[in-house]
Amino acid sequence: MSFFTTGMSKKTLLSGIQPSGQLHIGNYFGAIKQFIDMQDSHNAIYMIVDYHALNTIQDKKVMSENILNLAIDYLALGLDPKKSIIFKQSDVSEHTELCWIFDTITTMPFLMRAHAYKDAEANNKEISVGKFNYPMLMAADILLYDTDIVPVGQDQRQHVEYSRDTAQKFNNVFKKDVFKLPEPKILDAVAIVPGTDGRKMSKSYGNTIPLFATDEEIEKAVMGIVTDSSGDVPQNVYAIHRLLKSEAELKDLYENSKGKYKVLKEALIIDMKAFVKPLREKREQLAKDIDYVLDILKEGGKRAKIKAEKKMEQVKSAIGVDLY
Amino acid sequence: MSFFTTGMSKKTLLSGIQPSGQLHIGNYFGAIKQFIDMQDSHNAIYMIVDYHALNTIQDKKVMSENILNLAIDYLALGLDPKKSIIFKQSDVSEHTELCWIFDTITTMPFLMRAHAYKDAEANNKEISVGKFNYPMLMAADILLYDTDIVPVGQDQRQHVEYSRDTAQKFNNVFKKDVFKLPEPKILDAVAIVPGTDGRKMSKSYGNTIPLFATDEEIEKAVMGIVTDSSGDVPQNVYAIHRLLKSEAELKDLYENSKGKYKVLKEALIIDMKAFVKPLREKREQLAKDIDYVLDILKEGGKRAKIKAEKKMEQVKSAIGVDLY
Repeated sequence: MSFFTTGMSKKTLLSGIQPSGQLHIGNYFGAIKQFIDMQDSHNAIYMIVDYHALNTIQDKKVMSENILNLAIDYLALGLDPKKSIIFKQSDVSEHTELCWIFDTITTMPFLMRAHAYKDAEANNKEISVGKFNYPMLMAADILLYDTDIVPVGQDQRQHVEYSRDTAQKFNNVFKKDVFKLPEPKILDAVAIVPGTDGRKMSKSYGNTIPLFATDEEIEKAVMGIVTDSSGDVPQNVYAIHRLLKSEAELKDLYENSKGKYKVLKEALIIDMKAFVKPLREKREQLAKDIDYVLDILKEGGKRAKIKAEKKMEQVKSAIGVDLY
Repeated sequence: MSFFTTGMSKKTLLSGIQPSGQLHIGNYFGAIKQFIDMQDSHNAIYMIVDYHALNTIQDKKVMSENILNLAIDYLALGLDPKKSIIFKQSDVSEHTELCWIFDTITTMPFLMRAHAYKDAEANNKEISVGKFNYPMLMAADILLYDTDIVPVGQDQRQHVEYSRDTAQKFNNVFKKDVFKLPEPKILDAVAIVPGTDGRKMSKSYGNTIPLFATDEEIEKAVMGIVTDSSGDVPQNVYAIHRLLKSEAELKDLYENSKGKYKVLKEALIIDMKAFVKPLREKREQLAKDIDYVLDILKEGGKRAKIKAEKKMEQVKSAIGVDLY
């Protein structure tokens, strides 16, 4: 027993979320659920990365709508603004300011080794300077908040490496330990949710089930799941079903309905509707009170800015531009 | 005659100045004098570009000293904070924020065509991302203030071109005329001031005469001016002398002292001392009242920030991140 058992401070977790439109159940089970579950055990910061998204969304209306919808989505999914901070990147100018400072201590070859840039080069794609500079804005996003943990998919591990390298570089160049080194938290491998055609669920494949789908959308999507006739159990149906129920819960159903694809799909439809309904209703309720949602975002921005300003004071002192 | 003769509004001029250490008379006659002379006929904004300088000055002490010294220099040279704004870039975070936004609408090839980057590539030099991204921060510097005129040397014309292109690109992409197109004002060709060895006066050649030199420094520098024995008039002495006096004023002296290099150098020393003395004394006086200088900088930063914030409101509205 110890006197300190209740005094342990929580670790800070930062998660950047893209305002890229309608969520599907792949997004939810692959990542969002895991992010939101962490809000109880961490000081969680959820950031809508609108300035990253500006590389691809260059339309006023789409941008505004996507930001607002994403905030509504996360609140509907259980993000609790009393426990966590949710804010949008463009409310805290310190992100881009620190990005520039990192740019000055980062060499072109270092950044040219980033996967995204190399892929674009390999495909002869003309990318924007913002896409190229993405790892430095992400480093700023993470390092501004003394983040301990960044939950990422296996394929995004490099982003956190860039942040760690940049933190170390800054601390070395300016001879002061301003930045804490963050750790990646690799998301569970269950992360890869199959779509209705068996490939990874992804908007670009058109094989998604929307997370806040209507009953009709659910019926249509599930009935459209591709099945082959090679076995008794339709794998694509089962894989999605498993997101909603345990192996034990599904055992009897799938044993009793071998080969009966329609019966199994209908069972999945019932379970999917039951899962989606409370989320969709919560979302509809929030969508009726935009002012409430905007207040949460605005308040989150203020709370994030206080932290960011404090860190930037240390940064500005370290580089010598703080004269007053 | 017109009712409007006195109502003409002044044009806005922006000049970015590098905090790169001790000024020499080449800096003064080549550029600074021309910048400062423009404060009467323009709304002049003088910006100490510490965030640009961070690409090369990565030492807290050097950075702080250079910023402060540059502010003292400009005030000693006649910059009037009642007429103009003098501030440092790092006091207005909108510069780096707008730079990022420009990054997202700028392609890599567009920026790779910049002279500075091409030169570095040609020399196999590893440049920083900040150096590469320099034209976009400069575009932000200029466009934030609805700048009409940017005084630059002939070799810096491209910088203003980048700003114009970026202003147009933004206005087109987001379908709103947010930015005014700035014009370069090419500095007079007298701009190229010869150093003590006849080459362009430049710190890197070690051929400078410090602008706030002591009498001893002036004597040493002028006596060290390289002369050849090919003519009656020592060209390097005359070229520097001409900065201080007109052809007519110098005519008798140089005709009466043909071939007498020592006499001519001594005359230049007297004139140089007379020119430098009041500047040096003004500078010494200001250096005794650092708080006064810092107040001017701080106040300038506040005034600049108000303008920058106003422009950023338009920018944020145009890109769709202004939700409240």
